[in-house]
Amino acid sequence: MNAPLDFHAHLARRPLPAAMLQALRARFGERCSSAAAVCDQHGRDESPFPTTPPDAVVYCESTEDVAAVLRLADAYEVPVIPYGVGTSLEGHLLAVQGGVSVDLSRMTAIVQLNPEDLTVTVQAGVTREQLNQAVRDQGLFFPIDPGANATLGGMAATRASGTNAVRYGTMRENVLGLQVVTASGEVVRTGTRAKKSSAGYDLTRLFVGSEGTLGVMTEVTLKLYPLPEAVSAAICHFASIDAAVRATIQIIQMGVPIARCELLDVNAVRAVNAQSRLGLRESPMLLMEFHGSEAGVKEQAETVQAITGELGGEDFQWASTPEERTRLWTARHKAYFAGMQLNPGCRSVTTDTCVPISKLAEIIDLSVVDADASGLPYYIVGHVGDGNFHLAYLVKEGDASQRALAEAMSERMVQRAIALEGTCSGEHGVGLHKMGFLVDEAGAGAVALMRSIKHALDPKNIMNPGKIFDW
Amino acid sequence: MNAPLDFHAHLARRPLPAAMLQALRARFGERCSSAAAVCDQHGRDESPFPTTPPDAVVYCESTEDVAAVLRLADAYEVPVIPYGVGTSLEGHLLAVQGGVSVDLSRMTAIVQLNPEDLTVTVQAGVTREQLNQAVRDQGLFFPIDPGANATLGGMAATRASGTNAVRYGTMRENVLGLQVVTASGEVVRTGTRAKKSSAGYDLTRLFVGSEGTLGVMTEVTLKLYPLPEAVSAAICHFASIDAAVRATIQIIQMGVPIARCELLDVNAVRAVNAQSRLGLRESPMLLMEFHGSEAGVKEQAETVQAITGELGGEDFQWASTPEERTRLWTARHKAYFAGMQLNPGCRSVTTDTCVPISKLAEIIDLSVVDADASGLPYYIVGHVGDGNFHLAYLVKEGDASQRALAEAMSERMVQRAIALEGTCSGEHGVGLHKMGFLVDEAGAGAVALMRSIKHALDPKNIMNPGKIFDW
Repeated sequence: MNAPLDFHAHLARRPLPAAMLQALRARFGERCSSAAAVCDQHGRDESPFPTTPPDAVVYCESTEDVAAVLRLADAYEVPVIPYGVGTSLEGHLLAVQGGVSVDLSRMTAIVQLNPEDLTVTVQAGVTREQLNQAVRDQGLFFPIDPGANATLGGMAATRASGTNAVRYGTMRENVLGLQVVTASGEVVRTGTRAKKSSAGYDLTRLFVGSEGTLGVMTEVTLKLYPLPEAVSAAICHFASIDAAVRATIQIIQMGVPIARCELLDVNAVRAVNAQSRLGLRESPMLLMEFHGSEAGVKEQAETVQAITGELGGEDFQWASTPEERTRLWTARHKAYFAGMQLNPGCRSVTTDTCVPISKLAEIIDLSVVDADASGLPYYIVGHVGDGNFHLAYLVKEGDASQRALAEAMSERMVQRAIALEGTCSGEHGVGLHKMGFLVDEAGAGAVALMRSIKHALDPKNIMNPGKIFDW
Repeated sequence: MNAPLDFHAHLARRPLPAAMLQALRARFGERCSSAAAVCDQHGRDESPFPTTPPDAVVYCESTEDVAAVLRLADAYEVPVIPYGVGTSLEGHLLAVQGGVSVDLSRMTAIVQLNPEDLTVTVQAGVTREQLNQAVRDQGLFFPIDPGANATLGGMAATRASGTNAVRYGTMRENVLGLQVVTASGEVVRTGTRAKKSSAGYDLTRLFVGSEGTLGVMTEVTLKLYPLPEAVSAAICHFASIDAAVRATIQIIQMGVPIARCELLDVNAVRAVNAQSRLGLRESPMLLMEFHGSEAGVKEQAETVQAITGELGGEDFQWASTPEERTRLWTARHKAYFAGMQLNPGCRSVTTDTCVPISKLAEIIDLSVVDADASGLPYYIVGHVGDGNFHLAYLVKEGDASQRALAEAMSERMVQRAIALEGTCSGEHGVGLHKMGFLVDEAGAGAVALMRSIKHALDPKNIMNPGKIFDW
């Protein structure tokens, strides 16, 4: 077993040469800032690590801007950290070796929309909500929905997924191509707009999930989907988490093309009730959605209703109006912040394990026993249709022993997931937090291959250094 | 534009040291052969290139066997070419630098079947038909179907797809993990059995489609699917290819979850009629299949029947019995050999372009005009639901001017596909044949990244050297 990351020992700031800062200011003027407030804002994400600011922030507005920063960074051997809107969860954005944060949030152009091909190319700073606004009047949508209104660049960088992945796949399946600025400042394209290709190494999928460590993605070409003719959502309560998970397993094994299948434990239900006044019965529940033709949705729903009925589901309720659905899904998306508000002033240590579906009840049940015994407040939400769930331990800010307790439980859960042939991270990425877990999961040999690729594509270790694995 | 490959200039045989052959014989006994007949058999595939035999063939029966070959190859700097059943189409298997062919066809174990998770792990030499036999009594199937009864290792190596990809994706979407022997003879695992993961670089998808140039895949973990409750096939004739393609475009744009959507031009229909006595009307046709619940299949079929009717489709006919369906799909799968028999003694130069669906009619129409003008016999089959089709030019064996004519048309088609934001290869891979096209398509910068990865993972250039791109 690998030791957890020693955050402070991991810090190794490299100096930002004055000449580099001067060159950035000459090129970018007011779009380059080294103000403490700006740097602090770019030196944190939603992880429980302390703020670790970069030395400067550059607001890029074009691929050429990004390439200009990278050419300077290459020349001065200065770290570069791509930044979207700061919603990552594993310390991806923290400038542990100093350097320049490349803020892409102003790169919000829809570059090319091809409704007739179900594809769109966007700049990396476009958020998923902006994208869906832009394609809705063509009768299309982009299904990947990690909850946060993240940028498409950030979502590609962490190989994000979320609530619709059970039916539509993750960023892995939905990115067709990329424009990338390499570590030396060269602009390359990967992939095409064709739906499939066997032309050479799959660079697209190498960059997807590389967390900014191999280059900066500046454009993303994505698959789109026709808005379903019919959408229906339902909730179903269960006496236990175990019963809810067993119903999920059955739904997946039957091959029902369910679009969303989310678990909320009683703590999460309580939290969203408190925040959004939903008046939900306070017991474990599944929140589900079905997409298809009118008849297809009805058929799916009947199958699922029968399964949940057999497995002790109670109070199966429909939410067929768009307003009701939006209310439920908004509440689900706010569960993270709602959960935090159960214990004001706390931080959350959040797990992200994903296991083969038949092992899901086992790992959740054991993790609940562990969490209950700890006395720490916690809640569970999960994309259980994929075998993926998040257990968030709420720890008092600055309370080292609570933090250590939560990290120890997280560690035990990861070891269980690996033993069950699953993964330490379903969708959040490795960042700083899971560097040790990655070695446990993939093995030293596979991590050595990743390291060789990193050395080949970023020989000066300037692309988001200190993340995923040690140099 | 890049010059086409000069095959003979590309040959650069390295000597096989006697000590290496001796070491292989000591380790493998009769499972190591340097007999000319055996080497010749392993020095060709279905491409029109001349047989280019390896210096020896080793029949491996385990991952440890493969690792033993690789450790010797690393020590002696000898090329290694992974070999399944020899169905590749682009010269992948030809020993252009000599070396050892690692025959994996005896590695046929189903290592681990988990019907409850819809996953299976197989040794690389398992063929898709063997796999489907092994999982059928669990009510499951593996959809990727390139026509040939290829091995799963070979299919992963070329990122294969075929007739079911329009609904189920390609090997890119359906490989969960791999066991790989690296160029230095180390055994690593990539991926897990979890449905999704954000844990580190996506090594699985880097090896999928790497055509044996980065390592030898010895085990493949795959997604399986429940056998559909209902399956129905249909054929529909059209007055022109253009009308058939326009119907396809409409079907895809409507979001119909069609499972197979294949085009046969009149020449292909004639060929399968001649070979399989199908008595099909000799006009361009679509051969389609629908998977789902009884009601779902009926609904899809009604939608498609309405679309084809509006676009001039004629003689829409159902094939609902398994026997009829098998007869039609067997004929489709034999189209390659049936087409060859139209001109006995010929070889085929086969294209594999794939374009965004809205561009499909344009590229097929132009390619037909070109082919008709050439006077060469040809036929077209295509996975048109994906925007992918194959035009096979039939050239007299040894007729250099016919061959050059066919290659020139192939080149023009590829340039058109690239201009239309498509790819030179939808599913066959690059091999030897498309090395120039890859540079045209991906650009020198992206190919340089691929080359960096190759140099990092195979620094002695022993893994299937001389393929995909120049060293």
